Order: sequence, then C-alpha cells, then structure tokens
Amino acid sequence: MNAINETHAPQLRSWVASANQADGDFPIQNLPFGRFRQAGSTEALRIGVAIGDQVLDLRATGLIDTDDMNALMNASPAQRSALRSAISQGLAQGSAMQAAWTDALMPQAAVEMGLPCRINGYTDFYTGIYHATTVGSLFRPDNPLMPNYKWVPIGYHGRVSSIKASGQRFKRPMGQTKAPDAQAPSVGPCQRLDYELELGYLIGRGNELGEPIAIGQAEQHLFGVTLLNDWSARDIQAWEYQPLGPFLSKNFATSLSPWIVTMEALAPFRAKFERPAHDPQPLPYLDDPLNRQQGALNITLEVWLHTAKMRQAGLGPERLTRGNTAQAAYWTAAQLVAHHTVNGCNLEPGDLLGSGTLSGPNPGEAGSLLELSLGGKNPIILGNGERRTFLEDGDTLTLRGWCEGDGAVRIGLGEVSGTVLAASAA
Amino acid sequence: MNAINETHAPQLRSWVASANQADGDFPIQNLPFGRFRQAGSTEALRIGVAIGDQVLDLRATGLIDTDDMNALMNASPAQRSALRSAISQGLAQGSAMQAAWTDALMPQAAVEMGLPCRINGYTDFYTGIYHATTVGSLFRPDNPLMPNYKWVPIGYHGRVSSIKASGQRFKRPMGQTKAPDAQAPSVGPCQRLDYELELGYLIGRGNELGEPIAIGQAEQHLFGVTLLNDWSARDIQAWEYQPLGPFLSKNFATSLSPWIVTMEALAPFRAKFERPAHDPQPLPYLDDPLNRQQGALNITLEVWLHTAKMRQAGLGPERLTRGNTAQAAYWTAAQLVAHHTVNGCNLEPGDLLGSGTLSGPNPGEAGSLLELSLGGKNPIILGNGERRTFLEDGDTLTLRGWCEGDGAVRIGLGEVSGTVLAASAA
Repeated sequence: MNAINETHAPQLRSWVASANQADGDFPIQNLPFGRFRQAGSTEALRIGVAIGDQVLDLRATGLIDTDDMNALMNASPAQRSALRSAISQGLAQGSAMQAAWTDALMPQAAVEMGLPCRINGYTDFYTGIYHATTVGSLFRPDNPLMPNYKWVPIGYHGRVSSIKASGQRFKRPMGQTKAPDAQAPSVGPCQRLDYELELGYLIGRGNELGEPIAIGQAEQHLFGVTLLNDWSARDIQAWEYQPLGPFLSKNFATSLSPWIVTMEALAPFRAKFERPAHDPQPLPYLDDPLNRQQGALNITLEVWLHTAKMRQAGLGPERLTRGNTAQAAYWTAAQLVAHHTVNGCNLEPGDLLGSGTLSGPNPGEAGSLLELSLGGKNPIILGNGERRTFLEDGDTLTLRGWCEGDGAVRIGLGEVSGTVLAASAA
Repeated sequence: MNAINETHAPQLRSWVASANQADGDFPIQNLPFGRFRQAGSTEALRIGVAIGDQVLDLRATGLIDTDDMNALMNASPAQRSALRSAISQGLAQGSAMQAAWTDALMPQAAVEMGLPCRINGYTDFYTGIYHATTVGSLFRPDNPLMPNYKWVPIGYHGRVSSIKASGQRFKRPMGQTKAPDAQAPSVGPCQRLDYELELGYLIGRGNELGEPIAIGQAEQHLFGVTLLNDWSARDIQAWEYQPLGPFLSKNFATSLSPWIVTMEALAPFRAKFERPAHDPQPLPYLDDPLNRQQGALNITLEVWLHTAKMRQAGLGPERLTRGNTAQAAYWTAAQLVAHHTVNGCNLEPGDLLGSGTLSGPNPGEAGSLLELSLGGKNPIILGNGERRTFLEDGDTLTLRGWCEGDGAVRIGLGEVSGTVLAASAA
C-alpha cells in the first residue's frame, strides 16, 4: 500500500502544458480530487481532478459515473489505485485519450470550488506538541502539557455546519468573555481572533459501529489530506472551555482547502515517525512497524497574511510562518484513526480529522498568532509597519502546503484563504 | 406562539380507541412525529404520528407529500401549527376522515422506528446543575462547579455517527484509562460504564451562518423534545478529558427515543424559569420575559434498569430514578439556542441539542450511576439482591418521560432503551 509506482515517476509529463511547470502545485504526479462548478452558476458540484491550471471533469472522462465524492472515497484501496493509474495514463504525454479528454478540461480560473466532499463528522485533534506546550503555558502556566498528552491523541468533536471551502468570509464572532480581574463576564466582539494552521485528514472507507480499526489497517481508511484553518476566538475560549472543551470559540467558522491530495500522491513524502527515547512509547493499539517507518508526512506549511492596508497600498501578502508537519506532529494520522475507533466509534467516508495546530519548535514556525505574539504580549511588526497581536477586520489569511524532496516531483496542497469581516452591530 | 388551543382540549377524544386510555403516552393531545418502517423490512423510513398504540402514516393521509422529516421540521411555526390542527381534526372522534385514515394506521407493534430525523449536528449541554455539582466534586474535589457555570450554558459538540434509535445494543467500549496511582495508562474494557438521563431538543428551522438567533426568537426554532441517553465511560473520561473535553468516553453510543414531542404539544406544560435571587441573572442575550415566564419544561423523567438476572428470573425492570426537568435544568432550551448561535454558528433542521444530565436535588433523582453510587463508593442494592456501581454486561437501561398537571391530558415522550453487550476480545 502507498507504494511508489509509475504514477510518481519524475520523468512523467502531461499533455496539459501548465502541469509541467516547475514549482506548480498540480503536476501529473499529484492528481488531487475536488468538487467544482462553473463560476457564478448554481450547478450541482461535480468531481474534478486538478492538473496544472485546469480541472479535469472526471465524470466527463467516463472513468466514473457519479457526482458523489463520498461514494468515490468509499472505494477500496485497490479501486483507488486503479482510478489513479487510469487518470495518470490518460493525462500523460502521448496518451490516446488527449483528444477526448481535452473537452473535459476547464480552466481553474473559470470554476468555483466547493467543499471537496460532504463532511458528516469532524474531529479536531491536538497533535502539535509545540503548540500544545506553548498554548498550555498561556492558559495554564503551572501545568502546560497535561499528563495525558504523550499517551492519548487528544481530540474533540468539532462543528460541521460552519466548515466552508476556501474563500470563506465570516463576521468576527460575538461572545462572552471575562477578564481575569473582572467581576462578571460581558458580551461583545471577540478581541483575540486567531487562526490555526492545520492539516485535515479525510477518511475514505469507514468502519462499522463497534468494530475498531487496528493501527495496521488505519492507513487504508485514510483518503487524503487538505489544509484546514481552525479559526479561534481565544478570549471566548479561555472563559468557556472548562470543563467540556472549546465550543463557541471554534464553531463560528472553519475553512478547508478545496483539493484532497490523496495518500497515493503522498507516498513519496512519508517520513519516519519517532518518539524521543525518553518519551513514553505509544501503547500497542497506537504502535505498528509501518507507522514507525513511514507514519509521518513530510509537508511544508506556510501562513500568509494580507491586510486591508496592504491591499489598499497594492502590496502582496506577507508570510508569517513556515514549518514542517513531520517535525510538528506528535501523533500520525494512522494513530488518530486507531485511537478514534478503539472504543468502537464509527468513522464514515468524508469524515474530517484535524491535525491540530502544527507549530514547529523554532520561532517563525508557530501556527497561530497566540503563539507568534506570545499571548498578545509581543506584537508582530509587519513589513508595512502594521502591528498584529490578533487578527483585525479585513485581514485575509492564507495557508499553503507542499511536499518536495528525495528526487520526487514537488506536489502542492493548494491553499485555503479566509477573510475576517466586522462583527454584527451588537 | 405555543398558545394552548383546541388541540389540547381535555375533552378531545380520538376515533382511535387506544388513544383514549388514561395514562397512555400518545393521546390525541400529543401527536408526536417519528420515522418508521414495517418491522423486519428494508423499506425507506416514512414519517408517522403516534396515536394510541398505532402509527399514522402521514403521507398516506395526504397531509404531506414527503418522507423527509427534516424538510417538515424546516416549516414555519404557522405551517407547523396548521399541520398539527389538521392531524388533530382528522383523528378526532366524529371526523369525516376516519374511513380514509383508518387505512393509514399501522399498529406500533408491527413497525420498527428509526431515528426521528436525519441529525447533522449534535451538541451536548450541561444544564443539570445538581449533576454538574456532584460530578464536578468527583472529578475535581477542590473546584466542583466552575466559575463560568452560572454564566455560560456549557456545551460541547458530540458525535453524530453513533447516535442510534431506541433498542441500540452496543459493546462495552475499550479505551485508555489510568488509575491515579498507576505509573502509566493501560487499555481494556471500560470498568465504569454509565448512562446519562437527558432530554434531546431538536431544531426546526435553522439560521444562516453569521446570523445569531435572539432569545426572543429562539422558541420558534425549537421543533420538539426527545429522550436521550448519553452513555458514558467514566474511567476513560477521567483520563482523556483535559483540556479539550470528553471524546471517546462518549462517542461509542448515544441513544435517542423515536418520537419527537413537539413544542406545540408541550404548550400546557411550560413552567416559570427562575434563578435563585443570589445567583447571577442571565446576561441580556440569554434573558427574555417569555423565557422567564414559561421557558422551563415540566417533564417527569424516570430511569429503569433491567438486568440479565432479572430477565432470567422473569422479573420486570426496576426504577432507579424519578425526577423533573424543570427543577433540574439551570438553562432553558431557548437559552441554549441563543447561546449556540450568539457567535453566528448556524443550526440546521434536525440538529440535536442534549440537555445534559437532568439530576434533581434529592436522592433518588440522580440521572447517572456515577451520582447514585457516589462515584462507585456506594453500590446500589437492587430488589433481587444484585448490586450496581456501574453498568454490567446484559443490563438494559430505559428512560421514560411524561408531562401531566394543570388539568391538561397527560402526554408521554415514550421511551429509549439500550443494552450493554460484552466488550470485544482485546
């Protein structure tokens, strides 16, 4: 499974010319799935594959006969692999399909992307150990990393209805907050609005209620990876989260990138998963030779900020963060699947598992403003002189991710953007 | 809205004879909605209304032309009220519809009930202040009731995929636990399996993302009430819940009663919602004259246990608890809706809001074994000599609820049952 095969060959090129440009996100070695419609239309979403700057309408190729991405995600690993091979062969230079499939292409600039699938369940984990430690020290100075952190892949259920595709524009949330020295809480617009840089793992085939997925089988239930921005209201969170966890501080908006980069595409970018020797080793249901050998994902992640003032001045966005998943995540995606189901909980095709904020160990690798500004105490100074502790109205935040290295062709996850609008009048 | 009208008249009787028996759950004054199919069949679920010991196939009456309960829940209050009146008139003694509608009846004994609607989002709240105080004192002896409790209707997102209709049989969950004095956690079957006695509030019409529902409008977005058993693994919960809340301790199974008793049916059983004078009064977005006057629900709730040994000995179930919602809930359903959406979070038709465990202030009113057995320290002695601190394999737990009083005809919520099976072999 996940073997590197001819679909990853570095010399493979496509008859779609834009797919062959260096440093593009969508060469023929990638082939991510998404759902699109003609821009401005109200058509039902169709399944597409990104190739260069085009979208391949998959149904129009005749390779599938459905618009139901979740049904496609429910396919067996063998079926998925066969579909990937067929798409790769059809898009390869010299393919006999070129004439027929040219009609199935639409420029990405002419389409709008929806969520890549119907999400029934959303669980957000907390695998970023540097994030957990830094944030923990802000919320609980005496007790930053809980005693369970290195044993339990901590996670909680998120809200599905407010997950939207890239381009989400949302109002700054209102909510209850209480300053430590205030007598009573008050209600108003969030003052500490933040983002969280996460990966979103999407489930392919699920499991029956009562039937756990063993760690050795877990990778087969992962369909692919997206970028996830878990917008967070830190001041609301601090007041509400005890004892049942974050709620209104998170569920006002969550943004997901439109393209699912499949586990097959990611095969060349798997990395060793190792625990520091002095850390507890994972319990048996979370441990497996394959997971140790290649459970991690070598994905570079970036966060870019574009403020209203930058836009007005004709300036481009500014990078806040660059980091790497493999360094940041204390638990692998396979471990999340095994943990989520150990009690018999059933996962379904299209379920979304958030990685949690993937902050690296070094300055400039932090996946949230809470961390970058040290809880709001150290404002970031931007290139145009603006300062940020938390997000301001008009800020557009964009997450990007890509994989490269080991002689493989670079593939990208695309991006997820979102923009903060002013709060409603109280 | 929710006015008491001719559909509640005590003298109103049905041509369905079984509906006129005293102390039945489903007199003509009730008319709850559910989804049914012929027992043992694989038919798609259809919308039905319970009347006495029968189900009225609502589509067969011609009053609706859909099998989509969620679409029906999305109706306006005026449409809902009109539908209730039409059903009531058709089922009333002397109705001209009797001949035609007789063919639309099926005995409840001949059908199986599914979940009453498609649930997209599930949020579990924590409105039972006696429960929160007792459980808090077990998990956090120094700090039983958090400082936010009397200000924030505490809630968290639950798992939708494992919510099943009454009759659910589920395996005892496996999971990580750690005894306080243990060096490291271990994995095994839950040793402290419990139930939670809750009401489930179902959302009718939802709201757009970014558009809060004001407390004064909140009742119009409530469709009705069910019984909810939030099965809980206390030992897993104690180890996993910090800092992001309960997760695997809850998501292995949740059981819902099949009949939605509508807010219209509950109109005669609304009660004053009052805060003790020395408690903080609700913030303005959670406060409203209507909510104070009749925000509470006067519903009697019971928990019954039927053990394997009782069944073998031909004994009936034994009651563990009887309590009342109005006493137990510190927040009203309308307050939960207003709070859930104050940040712009969007609710959708069919969303489920759990009340949290509704324990009363007195012994014998506790809605969980954790409370009844004082954290497992005081076993309950059952009539047949069995002892229980937590649930054992083969135990069947049933929640019941009904409303009575003030000269109104008693109506019932029906029941939700579930049975614990042995854990999978590790």
